[in-house]
Amino acid sequence: MSSNPIDPVKLDKLAQVAIKVGLQLAEGQDLLMTAPMSAAPLVRRITEHAYKAGAGLVTTIYSDEEATLARYKYANDKSFDKGAAWLYAGMAEAFKANTARLAISGDNPMMLAGQDPDKVSRANRANSAAYKPALQLITGFDINWNIVSYPNAAWAKLIFPNDSEEIAVGKLADAIFKASRVDVDDPIAAWKEHNANLKKRWSWLNGKNFASLKYSGPGTDLTIGLADGHRWKGGASEAKNGITCNPNIPTEEVFTTPHRLRVEGTVSSTKPLSHNGTLIEDMQARFEGGRLVELKASKGQDIFNRVLDTDEGARRLGEVALVPHSSPISASGLLFYNTLYDENASSHIAMGQCYADCFVGGKELTQEQIFAKGGNTSNIHIDWMIGSDKIDIDGVHADGSSEPVMRKGEWA
Amino acid sequence: MSSNPIDPVKLDKLAQVAIKVGLQLAEGQDLLMTAPMSAAPLVRRITEHAYKAGAGLVTTIYSDEEATLARYKYANDKSFDKGAAWLYAGMAEAFKANTARLAISGDNPMMLAGQDPDKVSRANRANSAAYKPALQLITGFDINWNIVSYPNAAWAKLIFPNDSEEIAVGKLADAIFKASRVDVDDPIAAWKEHNANLKKRWSWLNGKNFASLKYSGPGTDLTIGLADGHRWKGGASEAKNGITCNPNIPTEEVFTTPHRLRVEGTVSSTKPLSHNGTLIEDMQARFEGGRLVELKASKGQDIFNRVLDTDEGARRLGEVALVPHSSPISASGLLFYNTLYDENASSHIAMGQCYADCFVGGKELTQEQIFAKGGNTSNIHIDWMIGSDKIDIDGVHADGSSEPVMRKGEWA
Ligand SMILES: [Zn+2]
Ligand SMILES: [Zn+2]
Ligand SMILES: [Zn+2]
Ligand SMILES: [Zn+2]
Repeated sequence: MSSNPIDPVKLDKLAQVAIKVGLQLAEGQDLLMTAPMSAAPLVRRITEHAYKAGAGLVTTIYSDEEATLARYKYANDKSFDKGAAWLYAGMAEAFKANTARLAISGDNPMMLAGQDPDKVSRANRANSAAYKPALQLITGFDINWNIVSYPNAAWAKLIFPNDSEEIAVGKLADAIFKASRVDVDDPIAAWKEHNANLKKRWSWLNGKNFASLKYSGPGTDLTIGLADGHRWKGGASEAKNGITCNPNIPTEEVFTTPHRLRVEGTVSSTKPLSHNGTLIEDMQARFEGGRLVELKASKGQDIFNRVLDTDEGARRLGEVALVPHSSPISASGLLFYNTLYDENASSHIAMGQCYADCFVGGKELTQEQIFAKGGNTSNIHIDWMIGSDKIDIDGVHADGSSEPVMRKGEWA
Repeated sequence: MSSNPIDPVKLDKLAQVAIKVGLQLAEGQDLLMTAPMSAAPLVRRITEHAYKAGAGLVTTIYSDEEATLARYKYANDKSFDKGAAWLYAGMAEAFKANTARLAISGDNPMMLAGQDPDKVSRANRANSAAYKPALQLITGFDINWNIVSYPNAAWAKLIFPNDSEEIAVGKLADAIFKASRVDVDDPIAAWKEHNANLKKRWSWLNGKNFASLKYSGPGTDLTIGLADGHRWKGGASEAKNGITCNPNIPTEEVFTTPHRLRVEGTVSSTKPLSHNGTLIEDMQARFEGGRLVELKASKGQDIFNRVLDTDEGARRLGEVALVPHSSPISASGLLFYNTLYDENASSHIAMGQCYADCFVGGKELTQEQIFAKGGNTSNIHIDWMIGSDKIDIDGVHADGSSEPVMRKGEWA
């Protein structure tokens, strides 16, 4: 029945941007894609553009919500401590052979909302542990990588609950196209300009070389020490294989690595966090010596505390990111229930693993050297949103002097 | 539009038979499934029955016909020498960790019919080479494995070209259910009886210990020497992990390993062979010293000759199988364009890799020992059909005496 609510021309442009801007896929390079089955129409457009760009071999690993739910419904308790180690080990081999990585996000954010939180957290933990060998090569930028989104029906209905499924999917598709800057005549030129604007911001921050950032606002009085030798990044990023990629589409953030031992104070979340199918809302966290020692939330408190017990590094920060409150995604006024979107509508922090590339000369540093400079290590990396139009941020120099970075959520 | 042409109760029984008879999945055992995307309804039923049977983790790798065709349409020439080595290496790791293997067949048999034969054969060869580490653990029965089928629409229309897609899918579904013995009240009991009947046949053949089989019929005058220490098998099979599985659903054959150096004479195919999306028809082959030295075909001759050039073992036999002409699949009168079905309607031979388990004590033999006994090795294993109601087969003893095995395609 019915017409397709997703504009096919813009969908094709999104696929082209994923290959030409997101990955900058090299001639002859293989591509490994992961996607929910519902995103097959975008997978097929991307596969076509990858081969047109000279891809070697494109291989897609699909996930299926119904199969995931069958596990929660029927599996033995022991199943929830298992991960597909063989698959992730294979992926790591692919990355070592210079295969590019593209992930399509768009799962139903509430997929696991009704499931036993203990099983959910154990399954996540087992999956994270199994995924680590592959994830380290991605976060370490051994290869060019990219995430884009596809408007899954359940996701669309969550954002637009009062619309029919068809209308909701069309609205979410348009929001994705706008945020991903493919609603213009020349998306590739638009991305060039956007990357230049982000570069202006991170260049300024790198010139300042702040020792810490101080956040003030409702429920927030937080100091985040920055790692020794940190550098700010944003937009395009050069991978170790020499290819400049845009890992996140959309992206509005500039970000760097906090010092895992130098975070003090309290902070409140400003948007709900959707984590592996469950929502965590109204978080209030207290940090001491870099460690999140207390977490309260009006919803999902138990689940998030379990996630924070994944490993020693899970309660420490791996990322601090600045996004102006007026950014286009924030201006849409939508809550996307999807970290890729919501983190880009708001300044945020991430629990867990840091990005090696957020250090000066990071590509050459060993994990031990990164750790010594204050970089955190963990099997998780979970962003949560702490920015709003009520937050002021100061940059504090090593000598204790400070200057404004953001005022009421905007660049000062 | 329209009702579902596939009987959901029988589909569920097929899923149950795949887990309980095909795999005999053990409590806590992981499962690796491969399937075309169109087979998702069966994948989901199987996933459910796997977890109900106590599966650890079920992981499905989907293939997509549209992505495959995009490669032929847009990829660089160099792409066709690439295989997903990382994925198959991962699968091999899974099997080494005792993961069971289930393949759902049901691709469009004509998918690649319009493509450049050189690209098709190079892509097949690259894929076979990459797949070898995983395939050897399957054919070597390191783990329990199984193949079942799902009625893909394009496949159904090929078999029933004069019916609407819906009618054709319904007819193919019913043919699959009947051949797979799930159209009865108690499919598990039906499989028990069928396995006992097959055992009677292979026990008789093992007792005879023939040195060779002699085939006579229209266009066929062929002697197939059997490997030293060969044993006949059929139906249920014990894997090295101790689990008895039924690798093929359906299955009607008893089979063993020919001697790779002792095949002489001429043989004609009796049904078309559908190989990776192309049809090969009216094959006539001549063997000398075990080697297929000449192959003619009215259709697909070039493609099949290219396949036979994959490696040294590709022109030698890895399997000889006996199926009575009156078997249920043959009695359906349908040409399925799918080896799993057509090979079980007809006595057949296979080019390429032999099954280690078709030797007495095969599980303990090294590849070198198997080779010394006459077992063949290759990156391919391709069955083709040489049985009909016009073929007589004699069993020849080591002393040259002989006795009838089949007359006019039936057990003598
Ligand atoms: Zn971020
Ligand atoms: Zn992050
Ligand atoms: Zn066979
Ligand atoms: Zn075979």
